[in-house]
Amino acid sequence: MTPEEFRTEALLLVDWVADHRARIPDLPVAAQVAPGSVRAALPMSAPEAPEEIADVLADLERIVVPGITQTQHPAFFGWFPSNASLASLLGDIASGGVAALGITWQSAPALTEVEQVVTDWLRDLCGLAPQWRGAIQDTASTGTLVAMLAARERAGEHSQEGGGMQAVPAPLVAYTSPQAHSSVPKAVLLAGFGRDNLRFIDVDPVTYAMRPEALAEAMAADVAAGRRPAVVVAAVGSTGTCAMDPVAEIVRIARSHGAWVHVDAAMAGSAMLLPEMRHLFAGVDEADSLVWNPHKWLGTILDCSLLYVRDVDHLIRCMSTTPSYLRSAVDDEVVQFKDWGIPLGRRFRALKLWFHLRLEGAEAIRSRLRRDLANARWLADQVAAEPDWRVLAPVDLQTVCVRHEPGGMTGEGLDRHTLDWAEAINASGRAFVSPSQLDGRWMVRVSIGAEATERADVAAMWELMKESAGAC
Amino acid sequence: MTPEEFRTEALLLVDWVADHRARIPDLPVAAQVAPGSVRAALPMSAPEAPEEIADVLADLERIVVPGITQTQHPAFFGWFPSNASLASLLGDIASGGVAALGITWQSAPALTEVEQVVTDWLRDLCGLAPQWRGAIQDTASTGTLVAMLAARERAGEHSQEGGGMQAVPAPLVAYTSPQAHSSVPKAVLLAGFGRDNLRFIDVDPVTYAMRPEALAEAMAADVAAGRRPAVVVAAVGSTGTCAMDPVAEIVRIARSHGAWVHVDAAMAGSAMLLPEMRHLFAGVDEADSLVWNPHKWLGTILDCSLLYVRDVDHLIRCMSTTPSYLRSAVDDEVVQFKDWGIPLGRRFRALKLWFHLRLEGAEAIRSRLRRDLANARWLADQVAAEPDWRVLAPVDLQTVCVRHEPGGMTGEGLDRHTLDWAEAINASGRAFVSPSQLDGRWMVRVSIGAEATERADVAAMWELMKESAGAC
Repeated sequence: MTPEEFRTEALLLVDWVADHRARIPDLPVAAQVAPGSVRAALPMSAPEAPEEIADVLADLERIVVPGITQTQHPAFFGWFPSNASLASLLGDIASGGVAALGITWQSAPALTEVEQVVTDWLRDLCGLAPQWRGAIQDTASTGTLVAMLAARERAGEHSQEGGGMQAVPAPLVAYTSPQAHSSVPKAVLLAGFGRDNLRFIDVDPVTYAMRPEALAEAMAADVAAGRRPAVVVAAVGSTGTCAMDPVAEIVRIARSHGAWVHVDAAMAGSAMLLPEMRHLFAGVDEADSLVWNPHKWLGTILDCSLLYVRDVDHLIRCMSTTPSYLRSAVDDEVVQFKDWGIPLGRRFRALKLWFHLRLEGAEAIRSRLRRDLANARWLADQVAAEPDWRVLAPVDLQTVCVRHEPGGMTGEGLDRHTLDWAEAINASGRAFVSPSQLDGRWMVRVSIGAEATERADVAAMWELMKESAGAC
Repeated sequence: MTPEEFRTEALLLVDWVADHRARIPDLPVAAQVAPGSVRAALPMSAPEAPEEIADVLADLERIVVPGITQTQHPAFFGWFPSNASLASLLGDIASGGVAALGITWQSAPALTEVEQVVTDWLRDLCGLAPQWRGAIQDTASTGTLVAMLAARERAGEHSQEGGGMQAVPAPLVAYTSPQAHSSVPKAVLLAGFGRDNLRFIDVDPVTYAMRPEALAEAMAADVAAGRRPAVVVAAVGSTGTCAMDPVAEIVRIARSHGAWVHVDAAMAGSAMLLPEMRHLFAGVDEADSLVWNPHKWLGTILDCSLLYVRDVDHLIRCMSTTPSYLRSAVDDEVVQFKDWGIPLGRRFRALKLWFHLRLEGAEAIRSRLRRDLANARWLADQVAAEPDWRVLAPVDLQTVCVRHEPGGMTGEGLDRHTLDWAEAINASGRAFVSPSQLDGRWMVRVSIGAEATERADVAAMWELMKESAGAC
């Protein structure tokens, strides 16, 4: 395709995107297609001859759009916010236009240095110490895996340079909350610790935050048994209830055993932009690594996760590769992001952040986050004031965990009721929630934070919740 | 940013992209900026108030473009081809427009099923058996790491479900070629094997391909010493010389020890689209996993790497996570790509491939690959026929490894000469090559395969090589 063909065809596509984004509030929130139906609508083999853009766009409209759960919908209250600002989409288009290959500083100095700049900008917006250095990863799953590898190598005294994880003298142990995101146990297992060396530390029954005394006990027991505490992953904004593990105390305990502290603030990290919310993040500045995702609440389009570390030299020792074809004369003067993560080749993801922050401005982003916090408090108040409804966990940020418990319903009957009314909401297409389990029972998380969600949308959701639960 | 603002601003950006792509042949190929200069041109903190798109585009032009090595340039002969077709850029724009969140099938059925379809299309275009199942990863580094984890878990009998890599009864050993890409030893180390358990197997002094008899000897020695051969990574199209390791023989030897065979065909894999080249890939169909990157020679914009496996159930057992908030009623009927790799959240990368294949058509892609193969053979013939010049390795595909050895120059003097003339080419801005080491001495790889590179560009490069080497 020539640049002139692109100019013509991209205009069609931009119009389609603008039209599509504008009509999202009128689409069903949850994808309403049957398993296999998208696949069945497509040919079994690739075309030999070129097709027309009009045909591709028609398929995008006819086949793809109905098969997408609309996370940009104002009534999207599922999982985590997954915003994809149009400002950051411009940055993504620019990234593709520039078509940089980020393998070394030399291959794309601008890719490297804009990434340094925007990760520093965000660190400073969060009020973190200037020692923190950041790099863009695809997702928090990857950032957490990198942190587990760095922690493993510190506790194992760089075993990968010798006999590897299979030759560490004492078993290394990892600790986290049972409320931690699924990516945390996955990363611990992939890093080679083994499930036997992964401890889920008790949480407080009211706040669902990790109990520091339970962590201290578990670490002491492991030490007494000849094992070595290697890493603690603190959930700062847990997936289930957005619980905030007490990082300051966790750091103090971990440090007494020389263990690494990794903070998973994938969703909640955006709240660090608000000075009045930073008390919830006390101690984060003292941790060893931190992951948070601008591609969630902050608004940058997928995929854009940040991994910050305090000891970047250690990270580089764990992750570096410098074969001859990647050497250059300036190696000591520049940052080589290939040594800060798993992939060698990197996209120019920093442009998404650069465009997002420049075209939106920090103040507007903070205002939007404050809007969402106020909406969550408002919803929590409504739920708490309504008979038969219960707010199940503290609403520190934007997640409201609820149950409808008519007539003292309990047990499996309550589970069925909860899943029924949540499913009724999702099937209606009018809103979307993701049920989750808490203390072994189903509940509904109302996760507020889509860019388009205003108070009226939250109020409509509350009416829909009452209507759906009442009808089930 | 509203959809209407996006419509207006995206038009400006599309024009910029079309203009930029059109003038790339007139830009210097290598970035010509000093370390730190891009960073110094940017403010130290994020803007509080929104900025204008015109200002951002002006910075893109003034600060970013000079800081990019132009891999889309017709005289880009460095590293690997890193094509970024405008057709695939349209797919990327569509992906951002749709803004799907790929965490489960339910979150985006179309994202999942289009990915199934296009990975099947490409498998079939490559002539691979229908047992192979593919998923898109960001890069081959990640795909190879996933393969190492899967191999580790097979050889270690799913140790991660117990005591982990630190409790395997016999040390697991990995084998590869010293010509393998840097991501291979990196993945082996990150997977926890340890450098002591990574064997670099001798290569043939003429073809630079792994010597199967050396592999058999190394495996037998490890077994005799109580270690367990776990995985062999075959370089099919090595980074240095594009050597093709003999996969059929490697598979036979590995299988006799129960070891996994992973094929790294990141660059060369595209040649499997050409039936007349498939003899070079004999045995690949019998391996356990295969990584190749449409974002290289095939033309799809970064990042788009494919990992194929034959035993997808094993892969899922190693990588799966299913917490309550990600469960759904259709789990058994659908593919959950989160369990085929590291990240939970996935972009709709399949659209890049879908647009690329549909708008280009398979036949045009094959023609372009054949053009590049013919250009490489032509250049190799010119070099071989010229006094004082030498082709250092077989030119099976598109990489031509050369030295200029005037007057029987050898040793460090030859190294200096090689680096001097390569650097002169890069500094001229007229073309770009990446020097590399072979048998401990520097050489120049001329890697042909940029989408824009025609015979005339290769001929001009050959004149520039003679001119630069003659002047050094």
